Amino acid sequence: MDDIEVEAVAEADLTDPVFIEGLPGVGNVGKLAVEHLLEEFEEATLVRRIYADVFPPQVSLDDGVAELTHAEVHAVETPGDGPDLLLLTGDHQAQSNEGHYHLTDAFLDVAEEFGAERLFALGGVPTGELVDEPSVLGGVTDESMRETLEDAGVEFREDEPAGGIVGVSGLLLGLGGRRGFEAACLMGETSGYLVDPQSAQAVIEVLQDLLEFSVDFEALEDRAEEMKEVAAKIQEMQQQQQQNLPSDDDLRYIG
Amino acid sequence: MDDIEVEAVAEADLTDPVFIEGLPGVGNVGKLAVEHLLEEFEEATLVRRIYADVFPPQVSLDDGVAELTHAEVHAVETPGDGPDLLLLTGDHQAQSNEGHYHLTDAFLDVAEEFGAERLFALGGVPTGELVDEPSVLGGVTDESMRETLEDAGVEFREDEPAGGIVGVSGLLLGLGGRRGFEAACLMGETSGYLVDPQSAQAVIEVLQDLLEFSVDFEALEDRAEEMKEVAAKIQEMQQQQQQNLPSDDDLRYIG
Amino acid sequence: MDDIEVEAVAEADLTDPVFIEGLPGVGNVGKLAVEHLLEEFEEATLVRRIYADVFPPQVSLDDGVAELTHAEVHAVETPGDGPDLLLLTGDHQAQSNEGHYHLTDAFLDVAEEFGAERLFALGGVPTGELVDEPSVLGGVTDESMRETLEDAGVEFREDEPAGGIVGVSGLLLGLGGRRGFEAACLMGETSGYLVDPQSAQAVIEVLQDLLEFSVDFEALEDRAEEMKEVAAKIQEMQQQQQQNLPSDDDLRYIG
Amino acid sequence: MDDIEVEAVAEADLTDPVFIEGLPGVGNVGKLAVEHLLEEFEEATLVRRIYADVFPPQVSLDDGVAELTHAEVHAVETPGDGPDLLLLTGDHQAQSNEGHYHLTDAFLDVAEEFGAERLFALGGVPTGELVDEPSVLGGVTDESMRETLEDAGVEFREDEPAGGIVGVSGLLLGLGGRRGFEAACLMGETSGYLVDPQSAQAVIEVLQDLLEFSVDFEALEDRAEEMKEVAAKIQEMQQQQQQNLPSDDDLRYIG
Repeated sequence: MDDIEVEAVAEADLTDPVFIEGLPGVGNVGKLAVEHLLEEFEEATLVRRIYADVFPPQVSLDDGVAELTHAEVHAVETPGDGPDLLLLTGDHQAQSNEGHYHLTDAFLDVAEEFGAERLFALGGVPTGELVDEPSVLGGVTDESMRETLEDAGVEFREDEPAGGIVGVSGLLLGLGGRRGFEAACLMGETSGYLVDPQSAQAVIEVLQDLLEFSVDFEALEDRAEEMKEVAAKIQEMQQQQQQNLPSDDDLRYIG
Repeated sequence: MDDIEVEAVAEADLTDPVFIEGLPGVGNVGKLAVEHLLEEFEEATLVRRIYADVFPPQVSLDDGVAELTHAEVHAVETPGDGPDLLLLTGDHQAQSNEGHYHLTDAFLDVAEEFGAERLFALGGVPTGELVDEPSVLGGVTDESMRETLEDAGVEFREDEPAGGIVGVSGLLLGLGGRRGFEAACLMGETSGYLVDPQSAQAVIEVLQDLLEFSVDFEALEDRAEEMKEVAAKIQEMQQQQQQNLPSDDDLRYIG
Repeated sequence: MDDIEVEAVAEADLTDPVFIEGLPGVGNVGKLAVEHLLEEFEEATLVRRIYADVFPPQVSLDDGVAELTHAEVHAVETPGDGPDLLLLTGDHQAQSNEGHYHLTDAFLDVAEEFGAERLFALGGVPTGELVDEPSVLGGVTDESMRETLEDAGVEFREDEPAGGIVGVSGLLLGLGGRRGFEAACLMGETSGYLVDPQSAQAVIEVLQDLLEFSVDFEALEDRAEEMKEVAAKIQEMQQQQQQNLPSDDDLRYIG
Repeated sequence: MDDIEVEAVAEADLTDPVFIEGLPGVGNVGKLAVEHLLEEFEEATLVRRIYADVFPPQVSLDDGVAELTHAEVHAVETPGDGPDLLLLTGDHQAQSNEGHYHLTDAFLDVAEEFGAERLFALGGVPTGELVDEPSVLGGVTDESMRETLEDAGVEFREDEPAGGIVGVSGLLLGLGGRRGFEAACLMGETSGYLVDPQSAQAVIEVLQDLLEFSVDFEALEDRAEEMKEVAAKIQEMQQQQQQNLPSDDDLRYIG
């Protein structure tokens, strides 16, 4: 196998497609969002598999049948007036520093091959606390893109996220911008502690507005409901633990 | 030295050989199984040594004579009606993520060179507790292979092993399947804490059935007996420690 | 993207330019120094951006606009009689052992391209305690350079810094010397615990003397003042903690 | 710079030279031994410097003059009847798994270039306790070499050292043997806790016998004496600490 191998599974004739990435990351927001789109656009076609020696040396088993770790690109011909979509997802980020660069370049090759000129990298931005109504923060390759995104509800905050954007999402903007793509990162606010379907929904809602498509959210809302129950239980347990701890008053006489 | 070097030690004229891998791993099940086959098929011929810079930078000493870390492939012309065998074993897995991919590709080259079209990757699957009668779990490159394996006693469980199959065993299926090999992984249940000859025997018994050969198990059974004694002593020590700990009753009045 | 990519942003016609490096390091002394020079020489021109897959896979955001991690070289035509300057800075060192070598080679290519024959690598040397009047220690590629530097106040101490000079600064001397550059490292003493603008100033003062330019230090002095207040607060907190600890006298009866 | 660069500093016309390696390792035995030989054979000529991007990215300073990390090969025309010597030493092992392989290959290239057909890799073998009269253990590329070494006092013990020989010393045998060199590893017993000049002397004494040269040991003996004092002080401190611990009797009533 070459270091990176792009397998052509099928072809698709797309009109002005937009490339959307959702690999694992904070709160799994990006991956949840792209997987939800794949479920809702039932006619999505798997067009490319990307194998790479910077993915973990691993197969997953589906009913005992092994599948080598890879990323996948699906093509979606959207029903409305909006552009067609190329949806990238997978189970892993690259396992090395250099790997992130080379893998992102391969993803951009696929985007280019299908004629995509616009990219969206989806992800989460950790807030450190549970978020009731997650905002969606943005990053862009060109200042001219900000206004359209702001109109769709995306917020641009000074120095946020603090460390910039890392991994494939960051490099899709960094390398993509240098290769002439118009790329944006949409980051849903999320606690950073739990998988966050609600944040994924917030990100998709922005995409809906920007790309003129419309999907149902019932599945995501159900999962968000489940996660809220999980979060409530965790909070309850934490409060009980705190009640069992000595209060500040109790500690007053110590040291 | 090249990054990977395959040394041709001898040739062998094999009929429809099956390639069987047993490198170190959980419970050393795969390595024990292949080493047992090598001991029982006394006429095994060492045909290839595989050296690689992703193996540890190390020589082992045999009576003071140094041997560079490598993997070995032996050819076995089986006496019965079953296919001939190519047995791969060694003391190490690759030391890097990419190394697993490149090493596995080199192993597949050897399999191809000798005309093998079928592969078995042998290993263990950790259960976290001592296992009396280890089952053998399976993974395959193609669904059509399941029935034959199930008839030989292999179990296919949904979502097991949970993390898929990692290392060279996983990639023999992942990369092997992509190169057209019919590959299966046979994983003996094992505690994960101890070297497990009994699990190795269970795996070989499946192979015997599938490949129509027959070997003696006395050596493995002796080693399994020894390991059972070791396990019993460990359990005894753990029980003594637990008796010295305060019981739940004792703890009732605390915090 | 290639492993390392040098982007030509602009050209500059420089007279006998001197290449000065200030990447992140101990006390951020080198980076602070070069950034201060860039602020004071207002007419600095960005001439090269250096991208590399050994930088972190990351973009920073400036008002929401993404910028791929890179190092930058600015050209400065100095007003006085001194040589022109090429100023290298950036937010990151290489992330791998080999990366430091390859990145430094790329920096030396840029220096060569602009006709630089002399290099200064700026950095800090950790003393482990707060320093009132930081000395500047030196390292050179050729003994003949020592006298000039000593005349400018640089100290050469036997076996200091103890571990030699690591990272890009070290390799600019190590690889630069082998390529025929006359290279020196100027290391301002610094505690090693805090960002140190005062040490950066000490380093620039040496450069001023050597390269016959003159810059204002108000901005650095203001930042140094702030850092002194931070240091004073930390010392105060430490003293309070120590008062709460048992004294040696109290401990006399123990053990 | 290439990944590995061999700089020809001088040439030497040697008769049947023997290549001897002493890089840092357990007890620094190998490095001490080769450095002692370099001091005693005053007419040693530096013939090759080996630079590599798998060495740390670092320069050392000698009176302020920077020297890029490298390994060195000196040629020694011995006065007696014995063979001439090529002495390899340096401050570092490779920093990566693959690096050990590639670096060793480069060292073997140098040995070959000078016509060496025999190699000695010098090192220490850790015993875990202070050793009064260190034995020298051996490893060889070919069984035929054992008798000569045994006659010179080298011991070959079954399964010792337990983990084989790692790093460049191991690979000089592993890769060297494959390239047709007659290579041996001489490992002086050493505690593993301290730099061990006495063990280095034991190793050199074997070499003296094998290669018919003779050196003075005063410098090594002086250093060994110093290290014995250091070891004695450490033992004294440990004994005092033990006396301050509660005895088993004191503990009898606890738990």
